[in-house]
Amino acid sequence: MLNPQLNAQGELIHLLTTEGLSRKILTQILDKAAEFVEGGELVNRKFTDLAGTSVFNLFFENSTRTRTTFEIAAKRLSADVSSLNIQASSTAKGETLLDTIHNLEAMGANLFVVRHSESGAAHLIARHVKPGVSVVNAGDGRHAHPTQAMLDMFTIRHYKQDFTKLRVAIVGDILHSRVARSQIHALSTLGCPEIRVIAPKTLLPTAVEQLGVHVYHDMAEGLKDVDVVAMLRLQNERMSGAYLPSTQEFFKYYGLTEEKLALAKPDAIVMHPGPMNRGVEIDSVVADGKQAVILPQVTFGIAVRMAVLSIVTANQRSAK
Amino acid sequence: MLNPQLNAQGELIHLLTTEGLSRKILTQILDKAAEFVEGGELVNRKFTDLAGTSVFNLFFENSTRTRTTFEIAAKRLSADVSSLNIQASSTAKGETLLDTIHNLEAMGANLFVVRHSESGAAHLIARHVKPGVSVVNAGDGRHAHPTQAMLDMFTIRHYKQDFTKLRVAIVGDILHSRVARSQIHALSTLGCPEIRVIAPKTLLPTAVEQLGVHVYHDMAEGLKDVDVVAMLRLQNERMSGAYLPSTQEFFKYYGLTEEKLALAKPDAIVMHPGPMNRGVEIDSVVADGKQAVILPQVTFGIAVRMAVLSIVTANQRSAK
Amino acid sequence: MLNPQLNAQGELIHLLTTEGLSRKILTQILDKAAEFVEGGELVNRKFTDLAGTSVFNLFFENSTRTRTTFEIAAKRLSADVSSLNIQASSTAKGETLLDTIHNLEAMGANLFVVRHSESGAAHLIARHVKPGVSVVNAGDGRHAHPTQAMLDMFTIRHYKQDFTKLRVAIVGDILHSRVARSQIHALSTLGCPEIRVIAPKTLLPTAVEQLGVHVYHDMAEGLKDVDVVAMLRLQNERMSGAYLPSTQEFFKYYGLTEEKLALAKPDAIVMHPGPMNRGVEIDSVVADGKQAVILPQVTFGIAVRMAVLSIVTANQRSAK
Repeated sequence: MLNPQLNAQGELIHLLTTEGLSRKILTQILDKAAEFVEGGELVNRKFTDLAGTSVFNLFFENSTRTRTTFEIAAKRLSADVSSLNIQASSTAKGETLLDTIHNLEAMGANLFVVRHSESGAAHLIARHVKPGVSVVNAGDGRHAHPTQAMLDMFTIRHYKQDFTKLRVAIVGDILHSRVARSQIHALSTLGCPEIRVIAPKTLLPTAVEQLGVHVYHDMAEGLKDVDVVAMLRLQNERMSGAYLPSTQEFFKYYGLTEEKLALAKPDAIVMHPGPMNRGVEIDSVVADGKQAVILPQVTFGIAVRMAVLSIVTANQRSAK
Repeated sequence: MLNPQLNAQGELIHLLTTEGLSRKILTQILDKAAEFVEGGELVNRKFTDLAGTSVFNLFFENSTRTRTTFEIAAKRLSADVSSLNIQASSTAKGETLLDTIHNLEAMGANLFVVRHSESGAAHLIARHVKPGVSVVNAGDGRHAHPTQAMLDMFTIRHYKQDFTKLRVAIVGDILHSRVARSQIHALSTLGCPEIRVIAPKTLLPTAVEQLGVHVYHDMAEGLKDVDVVAMLRLQNERMSGAYLPSTQEFFKYYGLTEEKLALAKPDAIVMHPGPMNRGVEIDSVVADGKQAVILPQVTFGIAVRMAVLSIVTANQRSAK
Repeated sequence: MLNPQLNAQGELIHLLTTEGLSRKILTQILDKAAEFVEGGELVNRKFTDLAGTSVFNLFFENSTRTRTTFEIAAKRLSADVSSLNIQASSTAKGETLLDTIHNLEAMGANLFVVRHSESGAAHLIARHVKPGVSVVNAGDGRHAHPTQAMLDMFTIRHYKQDFTKLRVAIVGDILHSRVARSQIHALSTLGCPEIRVIAPKTLLPTAVEQLGVHVYHDMAEGLKDVDVVAMLRLQNERMSGAYLPSTQEFFKYYGLTEEKLALAKPDAIVMHPGPMNRGVEIDSVVADGKQAVILPQVTFGIAVRMAVLSIVTANQRSAK
């Protein structure tokens, strides 16, 4: 019961990282999300799971896409949602992060969605909120982006059903990705027997093998017979010249083209967390092709975020 | 049925421009808007026409006023509304416009309100949205601003009832105005027999007569016996020195003063799309005078936007 | 009946300043706010006092904290809330303040919450809104910040019940504070017999004694046997070097430490409007100590703002 994400009954009250969460809890999230999806689309009505709940989006770095998806998810559950761009707020007047959090709690906040460039910011906040208040990590540093990982898991399960029979390849900038690490933990907890990472040495963390993955530097080998190709975004804005000769060079060796995709299983799905750099990580023909499930990922992302908000809120309420 | 704004049944599903819309459809918008107005004020309660509908305001250029009016209109109809300032969003990360649109659709968007500086941006988006999703043009380039034109039509009908007996003068910067072109089309479709434009040669588009208007360069002649004076905003921010000697000069010849207004019919109404440049296009005495209907225009603008959102949403739902 | 905040029946329809409001009206606000608090926390459900009401937050200077508290208060009362950062809006296009207000009224606004750096801006707006529309001052210049003063009154009453037996010290930058002046008026109207201000001469307005307060330049004397210590924020951003040698110097003489607080009554409460400059106005040990009621102030601030919005709206409706 030492996992800071769980209450004394072992129920999820914060989502900070997929690491350390049981298969049962990850499956609970996926099952709940499935209630919000019908025929591959979002169920077209409002839910009341968060009625009377006050959700604060705290974005310490700009991410319109992630902020928007959490806003939509919370509104579809009938929450009151406020979004704060923290640079523009009172932290600039010398207030500390925790003073800001405690002030928002005093204003009646029930749930914080936190995006921060520092690894561990969401954990820090979760350690200091008062009982009954939840924290959901919307991406911190290079560390964790658990709702993105869970929407990928939802997508894989939607198209492939059984994790225990799958070969999954994660391709690209593993080193700077908040997504890859969370994906690897979730896949392995859900029973995926073979997780591959494909990247140049300069874009791999040291000791990546310790995560239980198979490392490939060559697309032809790495994509062979996989069921799922999970592309990563090239984090141009995070990289200095040291990591990469050029985007053209990257596309040549690691960009997903029709030719390279042909090495995977014929029914392999192609995922990408967006926004895509077309012609860098992925060729437009593949991005818009019939194996791509990139737009369904976006839809499932709303459903998964709704599921997480709904579950932690229900667990907090039942604990009272 | 080639009009991209209509579905197979000839019903309005996008509002991109007043051009090509029938008198029947324009009248449907005006009649629907009239349901939201009582005694010249907005009916003071919420409606449920857009309950469960997700509206995205996509503003590619700043326009607080237009954005606010659409937000208010959508909220009064019980929609969920998200406003995105697109410069600040993922297009900056290299995502294309259409990728952004498709992502928002995947998040459950039912209706896009689009403001863009490029003529045709709303048309482009309307061509690529999936069935069931609507697009409303909130102003593009110099081209079209159809809800502004329709609120002007509503205002004229409110005060003058019958379009077929009216003489209307449009005064000022015809060349750079998104409003004038839309007004001319709407007036002429609704049966207005005499549309005049009054402007210096440098602020008139070439071949303006082809739109079926009478051109005047002199206020004294142009305003004579008109029922409606529709002033345009001087688009200072769009003009280089080439078009205009000075704003004082403009006011002298084309600014609406009490003296010039006296040439129109005694019960002529004065319209302006706002925000006004007092002392440039219009004298404060006129702007605040008893013939001005500039604030009622703002009220009717909410009603007309409610009408458009309601009509396209109802037509999309009935088509399912 | 000359008070511009009251209607012909002597009921509150605008809240611009605590000056000139009767003990009866201030007590009405405190009593109404008490309905929104239970066990020191906000009552955890939504109210419908402002259902169908359109509230506009007009912030002419940045204040995330105050804007957020008004947004939350209005949403908890089921209002439709729009927040406008006025620098970014059409005033930049040459529209005057009053044109902006009249436009928003025409869009259906029922209530304006106004924050402006100029003393008297909220008064100006209240003089020009049409009948039925209310204005609430969220802070103007150095002049007034009435909801902050009223939340302080609520906090004092919550912990000390009876104003007529209290000794209250207001400490710090009286000169630049929007809060101090409003506090002094409210305390004195509510019957507080002894109000002290403690500050260096350079941070006191001239003729401050005319407000009926006792002036101290020394903390040891000023804090002796007080029931309430109301710290002020050091307005670094408003001060030139002329007023203050250094923040260290300020802390030495006027910062609230455990030693200085020990001079007050043992059950004295410590208030601060936030955001705190820890180690400047207040030591962290005191800020986080058991006499501090700084976070409850934030909670009560939501309740008081809900009360003000509810009261002025009800009075406007009953007048119709």
